Amino acid sequence: MLAYARPLARLIGELEKLPGIGPKSAQRVAYHILRMPKSAALALAEAIAEVQEAVRFCSVCFNFSEDEVCSICRDPRRNKTTICVVAEPRDLIAIEKTGEHRGLYHVLHGVISPQDGIMPEQLRIRELLQRLDQSETAEVIVATNPTVEGDATALYLSKLLKPLGIKVTRLAHGLPLGADLDYADQATIISALQWRREM
Amino acid sequence: MLAYARPLARLIGELEKLPGIGPKSAQRVAYHILRMPKSAALALAEAIAEVQEAVRFCSVCFNFSEDEVCSICRDPRRNKTTICVVAEPRDLIAIEKTGEHRGLYHVLHGVISPQDGIMPEQLRIRELLQRLDQSETAEVIVATNPTVEGDATALYLSKLLKPLGIKVTRLAHGLPLGADLDYADQATIISALQWRREM
Repeated sequence: MLAYARPLARLIGELEKLPGIGPKSAQRVAYHILRMPKSAALALAEAIAEVQEAVRFCSVCFNFSEDEVCSICRDPRRNKTTICVVAEPRDLIAIEKTGEHRGLYHVLHGVISPQDGIMPEQLRIRELLQRLDQSETAEVIVATNPTVEGDATALYLSKLLKPLGIKVTRLAHGLPLGADLDYADQATIISALQWRREM
Repeated sequence: MLAYARPLARLIGELEKLPGIGPKSAQRVAYHILRMPKSAALALAEAIAEVQEAVRFCSVCFNFSEDEVCSICRDPRRNKTTICVVAEPRDLIAIEKTGEHRGLYHVLHGVISPQDGIMPEQLRIRELLQRLDQSETAEVIVATNPTVEGDATALYLSKLLKPLGIKVTRLAHGLPLGADLDYADQATIISALQWRREM
């Protein structure tokens, strides 16, 4: 693309590598950055460099953390008897935003998926077992996604943890709030029927 | 957002300021950056910092350029008698990609828009006049968008340039290729009628 100044072409190329950013939005973002106050552009560049330098895994729950142990694991007000197991840090954030779960977390960093070559050993499951061994955990809430891989991972964990005398629960599957039965997919309706509860 | 490590929260905050990037995609991009090889993340950070350092306006056409005069203005193969006037650098890129225009360009950096307080003096129109004065330009193609502001800017330029003996033309308005008359908006159909040509 001769018409782009070389540093602009380079930036567009780097931006296009990011998820969800196509050629058109890469161009739009690049022009925006070019016109930003210099301080704002440098703040963005620094934030990118810093995040790699300063963020690591919490040694307890494996969420991203600035410190050896993350702020949730260190928080004395959290209920230490319940651990919510999630596949990814973003799932932790989604649950944390609700304010409904006052216990701790454990991030697996993936789900079991043999066809993608992801086996239990590659997830933080060994670390979860070690953690349970040393703690007063009474319940593990498995909050993997309602997908084939999420279901398989939940089942695997349940088989592993129940013999240890730990209560293993799972997030309910069913109709999302405000959903219209008429528009819901069949799999969701089947789930909602299977998870039905007496009123 | 307590659950985010502070540098991660900072990066998400910076990313959210970019156009077209909402909270959800900012989070997605931030996690992606966190997991990139360090060299890739630094390449992105450097590209952002560099674009501000190394890109300026071409002193002839006002497109973004790495040099005092951009590669298009310096290219001896370009037709010096035709200048295509565009509102923004991205419009230049869009036309350049077609390979159809072999002349030069002039970037106004905006369109006349009294309600946004953008008057002709704030655009690179004075520079266009100076340029025409010193060159062998025979035709100016006005390639502003088919909008109220784009039309007003085209009209303003045409009134200014015609008395100088320069041919002023405008990109055609009409149905986009592959369009369905039945789905086209009324303004487009009206344009297509007004711009009709004998076959």
